[in-house]
Amino acid sequence: MGLIPKDVRFFELFERDAANVYQGAIELEAMLEHPDEFEERLKSITNLEHEGDIITHEIMDRLNRTFVTPIDREDIHALAGGLDDILDYIEATADRMHLYKINVPTPEVKELASILTQAVEQICLAVKDLRDLRRARRIMDRGIEINRLENEGDRISRAALARIFDECVDPVDAIKWKEIYEHIETAIDKCEDIANVMETVVVKHA
Amino acid sequence: MGLIPKDVRFFELFERDAANVYQGAIELEAMLEHPDEFEERLKSITNLEHEGDIITHEIMDRLNRTFVTPIDREDIHALAGGLDDILDYIEATADRMHLYKINVPTPEVKELASILTQAVEQICLAVKDLRDLRRARRIMDRGIEINRLENEGDRISRAALARIFDECVDPVDAIKWKEIYEHIETAIDKCEDIANVMETVVVKHA
Amino acid sequence: MGLIPKDVRFFELFERDAANVYQGAIELEAMLEHPDEFEERLKSITNLEHEGDIITHEIMDRLNRTFVTPIDREDIHALAGGLDDILDYIEATADRMHLYKINVPTPEVKELASILTQAVEQICLAVKDLRDLRRARRIMDRGIEINRLENEGDRISRAALARIFDECVDPVDAIKWKEIYEHIETAIDKCEDIANVMETVVVKHA
Repeated sequence: MGLIPKDVRFFELFERDAANVYQGAIELEAMLEHPDEFEERLKSITNLEHEGDIITHEIMDRLNRTFVTPIDREDIHALAGGLDDILDYIEATADRMHLYKINVPTPEVKELASILTQAVEQICLAVKDLRDLRRARRIMDRGIEINRLENEGDRISRAALARIFDECVDPVDAIKWKEIYEHIETAIDKCEDIANVMETVVVKHA
Repeated sequence: MGLIPKDVRFFELFERDAANVYQGAIELEAMLEHPDEFEERLKSITNLEHEGDIITHEIMDRLNRTFVTPIDREDIHALAGGLDDILDYIEATADRMHLYKINVPTPEVKELASILTQAVEQICLAVKDLRDLRRARRIMDRGIEINRLENEGDRISRAALARIFDECVDPVDAIKWKEIYEHIETAIDKCEDIANVMETVVVKHA
Repeated sequence: MGLIPKDVRFFELFERDAANVYQGAIELEAMLEHPDEFEERLKSITNLEHEGDIITHEIMDRLNRTFVTPIDREDIHALAGGLDDILDYIEATADRMHLYKINVPTPEVKELASILTQAVEQICLAVKDLRDLRRARRIMDRGIEINRLENEGDRISRAALARIFDECVDPVDAIKWKEIYEHIETAIDKCEDIANVMETVVVKHA
């Protein structure tokens, strides 16, 4: 077992992990489009979350057993942790929608789910480029796009919050929606954190 | 001053720290069983939290002055920080119960406090086993049990949340209980984080 | 390029960063004193937050390109991240005041903003002393003062929360104020985290 095969394996794991998170984002969007499939979609997300835990565990285990890593240990840790976080918040969003028996998703929550999917897609693409750091420019560009998406998400969730508080007849609905918007916004924020880690990796290898 | 005495001291500090957190969990349970002793129990928890701060400080100070540590520096940091966090959330839970003048604890908050005590007990036992990493299997088993307790806690707090929103006449009560359930659930989550760190330590020494 | 010029540059960046956060705290106080200047002050805070992002980026970039740093890498990371966090929470506080159309700031939010400014001032002074670690005693004293301010802030925000829940006619107002108090309290907590990091730096160099 030489050094190269190990390297490749870390990148493979990150790609699988990112693709799994992407699947979760897709399921969340589908759930919001088809409220009649709520329970079924939530179950898929929970399964993806378990699958993600297994991949994270595999990355951490490999990290603890590997002496020389292709990128810094702290960055591997941050990437794996960040991907895990995104899926956790996707699950929390879906779970709260279900728990609070919200059958009519707002336009804003759908827009936020779409932004999240787009941000995770950028992460999937950037992770692929980590294998060859000569593609640094492309990783940086994905980071800029994720940043743009995060700002857009922020704008939407702020407007959504203002709208709940202006229009909500029932304060309990305000509490529920506030939590849901916060979870999905946190998922998008975590995409930006991951983009920052990848930028750090690129700078270190420049 | 050789290497071995230093090692032992770290483990002693962790055992004292975990025992102190356990005392906090016991006090929280007692507080919920005897609402007439609320203020007195809250004072005990605050004192334990100060005691915990002193132990954390001692661990960090020792860490900063020690060159070779028995387990990785980052893991010592994570364990001390995690134990500190549990007690902070125990205090936050107790404090909010008092601040919000909640005199009738729900059955769910009592169940959650009991789960927390059981999880902290597992941590106390696992920390003792850290001294001798040939007991790796036992540490792993404690982790599995803490994971089971965390899932159980999650189930209870979700049901509790659903119930508040279904039954609460007063939305202000919903806000208060939501915060309390979140604090106690976070305390339980932190137990799981600590179990993960201990698992990492075991894997590294395997 | 010798070692010394690099060192000095890190300290310069931290001083600029802390001064920028201080400016943000001052703007938040001004905003609460002059509700008619709300929008204008919020815009200033957002600009300072962008300026802060640029400084953080410069610190991280320098960190990634520097092999030998004047203080430990992890501490540089924690200091830069902490300063960034304070300004983020200052912005979040101001943003929520504006988003929720709160035109009459409570006495408590003004007191908390004043405490935050005092805590950030202590950080500015302590950061200056980092250049010469023989001034360890002074850094420690600033930490004690920040700790005192944090306790004071905690007392005020707890009383404020109790008061909202006792007096609020509208539960939606309770939700809004709870979020605002939490953001400003988190900003103050972050000051304490930074004080702890500086204490760690001092201990390591003792």
